[in-house]
Amino acid sequence: MPASKPQQPVQPEHYLDRILNPRSILIVGASKDPVKRGNRAIQSLVSDHYAGTIIPINPREKEILGFPCYPSIAEAPGELDLAVVCTAAHTVKAVIEECGRRKVKGAILLAAGFSEIGEQGRILEDEVVALARQHGVRLIGPNTNGMFSARLGCNAWGLPDIPRGPLGLLSNSANCVTSIVMQARTHGFMGISTMLSVGNQADIEFHEYLECLGEDPGVSAVMLYLEGFKDAAAFREVARRTTQKKPVVMYVAGRTSEGKRAAKSHSGSLAGAYAINRGALRQSGVTVVERLYHLYPVAEALSLFPPMRGRRVAVVSEGGGPLTVAADALVEQGLVLAQLSQETQARIHAVVPNATAIDNPVDAGGGTDPRAEYYGPIVRAILEDPAIDAVLIVGLLGGYADRFGEQAAPAEHAVCAELGAMMREHGKPVIVQSHYSDLKTQSLRILREAGVPFQRHVEVAVQCLACAADASAARARNAQPAVPAVVQGPAPAAMRTIEAALAAGRDLLETEARDLLQCYGIAMPEYRLLRSAGDAAAAAAHFGDRRLAMKVVSADILHKSEAQGVLLGLQGADALREGWARIAANAAAYRPGSRIEGMLVTPMAPHGTEFIIGVTDDPQHGPVMLFGLGGVFVEVIGDVVFRALPLAPADALDMVGSLRHASVLDGVRGAPPVDRAALADLLVRLSRIRELHPQIAEIDLNPVIAHAGGQAVVDARIVLHRNVPTQA
Amino acid sequence: MPASKPQQPVQPEHYLDRILNPRSILIVGASKDPVKRGNRAIQSLVSDHYAGTIIPINPREKEILGFPCYPSIAEAPGELDLAVVCTAAHTVKAVIEECGRRKVKGAILLAAGFSEIGEQGRILEDEVVALARQHGVRLIGPNTNGMFSARLGCNAWGLPDIPRGPLGLLSNSANCVTSIVMQARTHGFMGISTMLSVGNQADIEFHEYLECLGEDPGVSAVMLYLEGFKDAAAFREVARRTTQKKPVVMYVAGRTSEGKRAAKSHSGSLAGAYAINRGALRQSGVTVVERLYHLYPVAEALSLFPPMRGRRVAVVSEGGGPLTVAADALVEQGLVLAQLSQETQARIHAVVPNATAIDNPVDAGGGTDPRAEYYGPIVRAILEDPAIDAVLIVGLLGGYADRFGEQAAPAEHAVCAELGAMMREHGKPVIVQSHYSDLKTQSLRILREAGVPFQRHVEVAVQCLACAADASAARARNAQPAVPAVVQGPAPAAMRTIEAALAAGRDLLETEARDLLQCYGIAMPEYRLLRSAGDAAAAAAHFGDRRLAMKVVSADILHKSEAQGVLLGLQGADALREGWARIAANAAAYRPGSRIEGMLVTPMAPHGTEFIIGVTDDPQHGPVMLFGLGGVFVEVIGDVVFRALPLAPADALDMVGSLRHASVLDGVRGAPPVDRAALADLLVRLSRIRELHPQIAEIDLNPVIAHAGGQAVVDARIVLHRNVPTQA
Repeated sequence: MPASKPQQPVQPEHYLDRILNPRSILIVGASKDPVKRGNRAIQSLVSDHYAGTIIPINPREKEILGFPCYPSIAEAPGELDLAVVCTAAHTVKAVIEECGRRKVKGAILLAAGFSEIGEQGRILEDEVVALARQHGVRLIGPNTNGMFSARLGCNAWGLPDIPRGPLGLLSNSANCVTSIVMQARTHGFMGISTMLSVGNQADIEFHEYLECLGEDPGVSAVMLYLEGFKDAAAFREVARRTTQKKPVVMYVAGRTSEGKRAAKSHSGSLAGAYAINRGALRQSGVTVVERLYHLYPVAEALSLFPPMRGRRVAVVSEGGGPLTVAADALVEQGLVLAQLSQETQARIHAVVPNATAIDNPVDAGGGTDPRAEYYGPIVRAILEDPAIDAVLIVGLLGGYADRFGEQAAPAEHAVCAELGAMMREHGKPVIVQSHYSDLKTQSLRILREAGVPFQRHVEVAVQCLACAADASAARARNAQPAVPAVVQGPAPAAMRTIEAALAAGRDLLETEARDLLQCYGIAMPEYRLLRSAGDAAAAAAHFGDRRLAMKVVSADILHKSEAQGVLLGLQGADALREGWARIAANAAAYRPGSRIEGMLVTPMAPHGTEFIIGVTDDPQHGPVMLFGLGGVFVEVIGDVVFRALPLAPADALDMVGSLRHASVLDGVRGAPPVDRAALADLLVRLSRIRELHPQIAEIDLNPVIAHAGGQAVVDARIVLHRNVPTQA
Repeated sequence: MPASKPQQPVQPEHYLDRILNPRSILIVGASKDPVKRGNRAIQSLVSDHYAGTIIPINPREKEILGFPCYPSIAEAPGELDLAVVCTAAHTVKAVIEECGRRKVKGAILLAAGFSEIGEQGRILEDEVVALARQHGVRLIGPNTNGMFSARLGCNAWGLPDIPRGPLGLLSNSANCVTSIVMQARTHGFMGISTMLSVGNQADIEFHEYLECLGEDPGVSAVMLYLEGFKDAAAFREVARRTTQKKPVVMYVAGRTSEGKRAAKSHSGSLAGAYAINRGALRQSGVTVVERLYHLYPVAEALSLFPPMRGRRVAVVSEGGGPLTVAADALVEQGLVLAQLSQETQARIHAVVPNATAIDNPVDAGGGTDPRAEYYGPIVRAILEDPAIDAVLIVGLLGGYADRFGEQAAPAEHAVCAELGAMMREHGKPVIVQSHYSDLKTQSLRILREAGVPFQRHVEVAVQCLACAADASAARARNAQPAVPAVVQGPAPAAMRTIEAALAAGRDLLETEARDLLQCYGIAMPEYRLLRSAGDAAAAAAHFGDRRLAMKVVSADILHKSEAQGVLLGLQGADALREGWARIAANAAAYRPGSRIEGMLVTPMAPHGTEFIIGVTDDPQHGPVMLFGLGGVFVEVIGDVVFRALPLAPADALDMVGSLRHASVLDGVRGAPPVDRAALADLLVRLSRIRELHPQIAEIDLNPVIAHAGGQAVVDARIVLHRNVPTQA
């Protein structure tokens, strides 16, 4: 491009931007038959007033729908941005080669019959991708419904009447996109900027699209329907950056094994472990919703809200029922119905002396006739109360004129216009739940212009606020500088231990695991290793009258309890000697010939709250941290949370507080509260240990007991990768 | 009414029917001012073409809106069914007296200012009710928005454009009714038959309205928004009968303490303990939904569905995303995505040879162009599969013509018409989730006429099916004959024990509680009562080498553990003697002078799964049964369920299976499965014991341990009412 005069420095456009907003589109396999995709593709571009050049390719036609038709891609004129490939799977390799020779930047491969159908399709897909890489052609799909982008009116999808606006949408399912577009058409007030059916992600993956939409100033929020990542780590990295700029809201399919199976047969996607996805995405600042129909409302609301600084919400209405519904929903979704200050209450009382309730929720009804003009001064008073982070208005607003006649309209219109300004002025989210949302009343049109989101249902509006609080907190966590290294470099002793174990072809012994953790600043309970029964007297003397646990130490015995290699509550030299004999006999019976390094003897852990903590490798996300309630809880209620590594201190604290039964942390049955910071510190250190020693495949601390005096790591197991270079 | 010729015997109409469908309406406080309620009340009746007589009452007017106005109720002509009282609270007593003298059957008291505002209002309300009872006038309200009934077009509410249909609606909140009416106006296809804002329920209560709507053949399902019962037992009784005939679907507000507080300030209602309400309502056959916006869709769907015989659902679509969403939602809501038989799969394959999936979910998409005509034969094949109880169609149906052009319309229309007939022919629910629901397409109009419910969102459609399965199961449970008495009459020994304890002014000792349970066929662990330390030797000899628990028996010590009155793991006479001394010392320290009856000695319970089981008195529902997970579970996860007494065997089994973590019953950590029938039998016996001995205030079995050999009641406490007659 000639630059004859100096230009303002501009943000260079993302490398996908030109493909997603092409100035020219080849229709490969263009047809005169109006029901064929090669014709409908042109129809959609025309009906959406595509501002670029449409170039049909078909050797047997001269013209299609008024556009000159070219016999081959080679003969197509001008710079070529995008090819919409409507032909069948077996033709695609040839098409890509032609595209490559003509320097077409990208191609949408609509055809199915690739990796989603099994091995044969996978081979074809790999060949297509190899060709495309060789020629520098980027691929959307295959097995995709296409793409829509509003900037140039590029409807390469075929869905009619897509409302235009600032929302991005990326999806593993075209059908779910239809669902969301219909929400935008019938309920929403924000339309679509760019939407993509990612298909098999053979070449371009979710994270590249997300990065492009993240950099597009015309996109205010991105929605995703996801059945599976191809590169989860890359996605997290892009998501973390993108969510500093705009909300990313995601529905992750495949929460259950039945859902995973359905996803697999549909898009060939391998849905990961849901709990791991959820944790890793939260950590990356992504808002995960668990109802498909929440995706659109939440994205819309989050793109309009200022940051939500806390979780304290005030609710305002005329009429009590929706306030009751809102109060229950707020509490159940982890928000706080905070008490308004005396001053705020006094101000509300001055506005509506006979209000039914003024402390929060605020019920402006009661005795007097309904009056929309109450909302303005009430909401202003609340927004000025420092104890409140957001306002939810429920019930009739938006319908006063419909319900009570046109004389109610002027006041209602004024309030609706005012709310947006108030939201921005005070920098606190305001959302309206209106029974009249679907009537699209004049008041709601005004509210929309004022930039205030409104929802039809109380519980959905509350979900928007809960997501806003979470998203703002995540953004704040991720805005902090890089993870401070609690530990500088790898400890030589730890490296030696790992190298020796690898050389011996085994995992770490429990004693080695304990020493390794200890040398990274994790306080470990004191222990003695008895090399023979003869060491019992010295150990007994050392520990005095403390009751002891004894555990076999053997590289041949992975599951000590199963081998009956653990004895509890021992006291005195005789007990230790007898213990040695019993465990040795059990070990010999369990696995004849197993080599016993000795017996680990350590004081019994004090009573307290049990947790399990671990590091493991997830096939999608790589190394992840696990934190959960231990004891019988583990299996029955499965209250465990995950985060990807490395783990920042803020994420570790968030992780600890994310347990479903986090009330356990406050102390159960008179137990003292658990020291959250100490647990978080332990998590961060483990993360750093895994980072410094990539040979570690798994760390398993089960249980860690939090007690009055601190926390005790009762058992430590470290499993090694056998084929990883020894230096990070 | 003269009966000049013989008539068909008809069901006599319910005593409220004439008040809810009045043939004449007095407007007390009628006004010429069009913004006043006394004028708007007449406007609404006129605009809804009320078929009865409108009689305005106002001493200062001759005519209002064309209706002759009467100076007083006394002078109003003809038979008077209903008075709509628009005047303020302080006038109401005089109005009721006038109504009474003129034999008006019922009155709607719109005014607020009664019990909802506190003590002064309550006194006024009581006086009004006393007067009304004296005169035989039934009262709706006070503090109500009124009533709408479609039969005669009686809009005594004021809300415009209420769609008419077969649904009943009873509510503590007029504002929530507005929300539901707007759903019916904009999304639904069923309108309202009768709706009532029950106000303070000073006279007519929820259960009386419900009974009336239950007997009304024009009502196919009843929705309720409830903030509080006045007579929960009466409600349960009516609900149990009504749900044998038609669905009753309820949203119960006040699940959280914040919600309860909001309800209180709004309607003065005392929301009961939510878990108890939920359990007792489920037992009565009521479908409880936990989102307000589910109320209308679920009522609509349940009123159209045939009974759902099990929980096995098949899902059909063209396109995989919504199938994945549906699979996750089904499993999460307790339904089963059952495998289709080979035969069914073969039939589907014959219809769509290249379908993406045919085993369930069925994805008819894949390769071929979308074709609505696939749905008919696929759904028929599925409905004929005995392994399937219901069919859910998700995605595009209802929108083929909109999406793919008019040529798709004929096939789509034919399928939509056919689905209703298929549903009824096979007696299995069919529901459609259509992205196009809110476009109200021609296809959806046909589906509506065919009587097939459709929903906009997958998760809501799944909720409808889950509710249908629950409601059908409850109906089957409640259709069983009366509770068989596992125990005939009160045992004389038990009566003597209770009488003796009452005479002594104390609750039962643990030994007495154990004996009482035992004599009603509840197997209790063997025990010995040591009257003195001297009995230790005999007890030790009796129990041999079994390890024993020792507990203090004293009417003065209610909380044995707190008093350190329990020792575990004792063995041998010496240990028992020492134990006696230690517990006696602890008891003396805990409560000096406490009288010790002795020490109960019993073998330690085997390990197993701990439950808590109890009977207690709920302020709203009376005696209720509690069943829950015991041990540390009790406090942390609070997995407890409730039912009202008496408890039928089927309800007891349902109760056991209703735990949130019911997987515990299948055996945790290699434990054997819990004997559900044995637990249920225990619950039924406890229920019967409470019934036979109304002097029992509370039974507390904590824990009951289910183990390999059966179940052990480890601790039993029975607390007595001190002021109840001794015979049931």
